[in-house]
Amino acid sequence: MSSLARTTYHHGQLRPALLKEARALLDAGGPEAISLREIARRSGVSPTAAYRHFRDKDSLLAAIAVEGFLKFSAALRASMAGGKPFASMGRAYIEFALAQPGLFRLMFGPLIRERERFPELAVASAKAFEALRGGASTTLASPEADIDAAALRAWALVHGLAHLLLDGVFDRASAGEMIDAALRAR
Amino acid sequence: MSSLARTTYHHGQLRPALLKEARALLDAGGPEAISLREIARRSGVSPTAAYRHFRDKDSLLAAIAVEGFLKFSAALRASMAGGKPFASMGRAYIEFALAQPGLFRLMFGPLIRERERFPELAVASAKAFEALRGGASTTLASPEADIDAAALRAWALVHGLAHLLLDGVFDRASAGEMIDAALRAR
Repeated sequence: MSSLARTTYHHGQLRPALLKEARALLDAGGPEAISLREIARRSGVSPTAAYRHFRDKDSLLAAIAVEGFLKFSAALRASMAGGKPFASMGRAYIEFALAQPGLFRLMFGPLIRERERFPELAVASAKAFEALRGGASTTLASPEADIDAAALRAWALVHGLAHLLLDGVFDRASAGEMIDAALRAR
Repeated sequence: MSSLARTTYHHGQLRPALLKEARALLDAGGPEAISLREIARRSGVSPTAAYRHFRDKDSLLAAIAVEGFLKFSAALRASMAGGKPFASMGRAYIEFALAQPGLFRLMFGPLIRERERFPELAVASAKAFEALRGGASTTLASPEADIDAAALRAWALVHGLAHLLLDGVFDRASAGEMIDAALRAR
């Protein structure tokens, strides 16, 4: 779309449109590729219109991460439908990371500089932990504290494996095998 | 040191001097802060002299990471001296990461773009896995395959916990507690 063209959005439609363009830039070039000016241009609106929805780049990144956490929690919950909820969830966790590395790094990484500015991020990531905890509690009939510890261990394990695969420490070609080996005992 | 001053290094002394300056820049400002020109300037030599030791920035980053892996493996091995080698090693792993986040991210992260250019990196990280495997084999009297799987799980678990703490998903203030909870069952 030419930078001269201006698109009109119905109330409430511009924010999701801007987020969609930002996600596309994230997937293509990583968080460095994202700029508010560029997503405004791609959405056919002025930078000022974009700044009305996102105060700065960090606000935009946080909004993408929150959306990511919601999808992520949904994927974890959906994976529980089959048997062995713990192992299935672990697999869903790692597959989510490998399928959209840019989004995963943004959600969990240090790219958003002042996370404490965005309490909605803590809320969204807590939902993901709740999903993992749900998996732990259906697997174990244990005191609450044990369930928390088991969920923490499960989270750390799959998060670590996702990173070691994403970052190329382990060979991506053997991802399936490694996930099997790591989750077998669950 | 002024950029006009030129220091003379004995044969074999410049490379470690350059690496030391690069580590200082990494610790202060992250990998973006590192440049070959800047470490040459700080070491009091010409950029050409620095380029004789490191072809490009990635070569320099890989050399820092290799050094990091050697220190890391030594720290893991040292931690095994006490009882409960698995839990002690886990703790040593996470403490290493939290004490030098820049180095840890460089060693394991995507900052070095073409890891396959540097086979010495794979060798150095394999040494770290060997140390973990050593911890697993003293803890378990099991078939080889089980030891590999246990070491993989231990690695993934501590790597994930290190990242979740480093990246601020979990509160750093409760790091000790979380490490205890995650490693209790080991």
